[in-house]
Amino acid sequence: MSQLSPVDDTFRARLRALLPEKALREDMDPYVQELRGAYRGRAGMVVAPGSTEEVSSVLAAANEARVAVVPYGGGTGLVAGQVMPEGPAPLILSLERMTRIRRVDAEENVITADAGVVVEELHRAAEGVNRLFPLSFGAQGSARIGGALASNAGGLNVLRYGNTRELCLGIEAVLADGRVMHTLTRLRKDNTGYDLRNLMVGSEGTLGVITGAALKLFSRPTRRATAMLVVPSPAAALKLLALARDHAGEQISGFELISGESFRFLEATLPDIRRPFHPAPDWMVLTEVGLSGTGDAEGMMAGILEAAFEAELVTDGVIAQSEAQADELWHLREAIPEANRAIGAISSHDIALPLSALPEFIEEGTAKLADLGPYRLNCFGHLGDGNLHYNVFPPAGEAKADHMGAKRAIMDLVHDLVAGYDGSFSAEHGVGRLKVEDLERYGDPVKLEMMRGIKRLFDPNGILNPGAVLRAED
Amino acid sequence: MSQLSPVDDTFRARLRALLPEKALREDMDPYVQELRGAYRGRAGMVVAPGSTEEVSSVLAAANEARVAVVPYGGGTGLVAGQVMPEGPAPLILSLERMTRIRRVDAEENVITADAGVVVEELHRAAEGVNRLFPLSFGAQGSARIGGALASNAGGLNVLRYGNTRELCLGIEAVLADGRVMHTLTRLRKDNTGYDLRNLMVGSEGTLGVITGAALKLFSRPTRRATAMLVVPSPAAALKLLALARDHAGEQISGFELISGESFRFLEATLPDIRRPFHPAPDWMVLTEVGLSGTGDAEGMMAGILEAAFEAELVTDGVIAQSEAQADELWHLREAIPEANRAIGAISSHDIALPLSALPEFIEEGTAKLADLGPYRLNCFGHLGDGNLHYNVFPPAGEAKADHMGAKRAIMDLVHDLVAGYDGSFSAEHGVGRLKVEDLERYGDPVKLEMMRGIKRLFDPNGILNPGAVLRAED
Repeated sequence: MSQLSPVDDTFRARLRALLPEKALREDMDPYVQELRGAYRGRAGMVVAPGSTEEVSSVLAAANEARVAVVPYGGGTGLVAGQVMPEGPAPLILSLERMTRIRRVDAEENVITADAGVVVEELHRAAEGVNRLFPLSFGAQGSARIGGALASNAGGLNVLRYGNTRELCLGIEAVLADGRVMHTLTRLRKDNTGYDLRNLMVGSEGTLGVITGAALKLFSRPTRRATAMLVVPSPAAALKLLALARDHAGEQISGFELISGESFRFLEATLPDIRRPFHPAPDWMVLTEVGLSGTGDAEGMMAGILEAAFEAELVTDGVIAQSEAQADELWHLREAIPEANRAIGAISSHDIALPLSALPEFIEEGTAKLADLGPYRLNCFGHLGDGNLHYNVFPPAGEAKADHMGAKRAIMDLVHDLVAGYDGSFSAEHGVGRLKVEDLERYGDPVKLEMMRGIKRLFDPNGILNPGAVLRAED
Repeated sequence: MSQLSPVDDTFRARLRALLPEKALREDMDPYVQELRGAYRGRAGMVVAPGSTEEVSSVLAAANEARVAVVPYGGGTGLVAGQVMPEGPAPLILSLERMTRIRRVDAEENVITADAGVVVEELHRAAEGVNRLFPLSFGAQGSARIGGALASNAGGLNVLRYGNTRELCLGIEAVLADGRVMHTLTRLRKDNTGYDLRNLMVGSEGTLGVITGAALKLFSRPTRRATAMLVVPSPAAALKLLALARDHAGEQISGFELISGESFRFLEATLPDIRRPFHPAPDWMVLTEVGLSGTGDAEGMMAGILEAAFEAELVTDGVIAQSEAQADELWHLREAIPEANRAIGAISSHDIALPLSALPEFIEEGTAKLADLGPYRLNCFGHLGDGNLHYNVFPPAGEAKADHMGAKRAIMDLVHDLVAGYDGSFSAEHGVGRLKVEDLERYGDPVKLEMMRGIKRLFDPNGILNPGAVLRAED
């Protein structure tokens, strides 16, 4: 691989000649910051092309000049995939001007959009034709669909509708040398060769720049019933999920685990958010069924609850009596990350486990952490997907700064344990730059070798998001 | 790429030393035949390893000796991916002895199996724990799951549950040089690097040999309602689908288009199969809703029908009054391919179209075919997926043999038209050897270049299923 060069005046002049004035961004500061403040990126220039053709010429120029390119969506990634703190000053390629919804096919349940469309805009466009675009996560008001695809974002609706990957039918992407892969089909079935769409999805900007996508829409569930339930243990929560599925099949829209610690953190940092159950129970589940047509969602939820009480899987619970109450329960769930940030975690983990291993993992993890020190643990998240946010905090009353020395030990403890249960050290956030070492440590070595080969094939000069996912090669 | 060598005595001796006696197959004849009889494969040796380790040593030996390897599942593929008619006599690697179901995790809805397990065995294992494994197609009694994954098989349940690709959580695969990729996770979420699972799925044995997989299970819909409905046109059928979804959401398990010609072919060749509606209407839809728990499937279907009659989307219909009647309607649908084979198609096409383009495509296709000659057309299939089986037959009373000269013209007409509507020339059967030229003609050229690069990366000596998907390189 050839050496990368920093953006220099010659390169800047080259891009200024290629792009219209409005594609140039003078203020580079917003693009080098990162939500959690753990990284600060470098930048030699920021451009925001307005079309696939412009993205293509920018990449061709960067590839020729061996200038690193950091593709940039909404900047909401949590693993530093969008900031490059080391190496020769890169070009930041923002998709913020590619915000056209290309077409909405309501009858066929497809929306086709530029990569720069904000996720929430897709929600609105779908709503406009009485459809649902289900991708839903905290940052949906600023995250762009190209970034969500590049990182295969998850969120609150994965249980029912899948990750971003499963929502994508076709993709248009520009390769490192500027060639455009025109595979933006709206087809539900297409067995014509290797699946390069899914190779691009989740590649975190290291194999190409996604410029457009065709995405699935769904019928809007018109009746929903939402409940927050107290469960005796995570094992009971899993049995409750199986029971709920026997009643409702795929119509369970959400199944979130909430810990007592979540409630205590909310009480301490966001006391205005109303919480049911006092004192806070150890474990709760927030669940929702969503039905189409004239289905009786409340009756279904009542049936689930009755059976669950009978089976002693639930000991207490509230069912939302109005849309406002349902929204309030979801708001509580969505506020947990904010409470966590206010408390300040020593180490946060976005892990996945085989569902049946979850209860044992939680038990063993809690015991092993206690051996390490009197840390507080907030373990919550997308239980139905086997995806926990497993965050470790300093003891009550102590400062985070005094415990950062334990971060690596905590992280290794958690990730080693996860690996022992055949789990994943990154369920939905990706690898980015934060977890490159974890991938090297826990990834299958043959898969890693083939990944490196694919990186060299798609990006022989290594210009695309160097250092993300895979260590930059010399 | 180096030249391939035929299986010779030295190589045979090598494999005999590597494998136990029971892994050797003396009768090679069944492995070189093909269902439709259009191809006859070559074979220098047939082996059936009993474990992933044995598959690994066989591939390492073949790679070293530059012997071509044709991976073999149930032999039911329809595009000659499993038979190699040209080139030096290959080794056929059958998965027929790897038939172990490794584990069934009912609570987490996962089944993990060797690649040689027959699809119907997976159905039975799932039923045994009150779960559904939804992959369902005509050849399910002999097709093996490894082949279904390698070809990303579709079938009757794709509308609700997705293709084989969407049913797969993790994969174990042996690469051309014998290295094993251990990525057999049971996780619902795992964003740790490039998606090599989906690269293997649908690669038709040209990038590696799948030896095991973890697959999704589902709650069994306990209540179903099945109906065959007469619709005025394909456009009305699509509106009916949207209407049905407004009522039933994702609980529509099937939505199949059936043509009047299908009925006439059944009458001529399988008269014992009972058909509703006399004379045969031009267009019908077979649909089913499947509900969990105590849901009222019949009431839901009745609601759909009432609204559909009201909207003039349906003019006549029968709702099955018993499980036996429902089975009978599905049996009718599943017998259509057999009737087609008895009549004898000049050219069969497994095409996909964007749903909204379907009605216009059918109209234009019918007109253009009529210009070409007085052919009969049987257009039927998985309408909900946009996937039509679009088969062209000789005029009534005339012999197929007298019209085979028109095959290429018919195929080009159909595939050109499909391409014009941004459709696919292979929706669910794959490319195999039958459609290599079509892929070269209609595939995106950049995608094709990258596919060739990936092939060279995974299989530098070109031993894996040469000539399938991509033309063998010299």
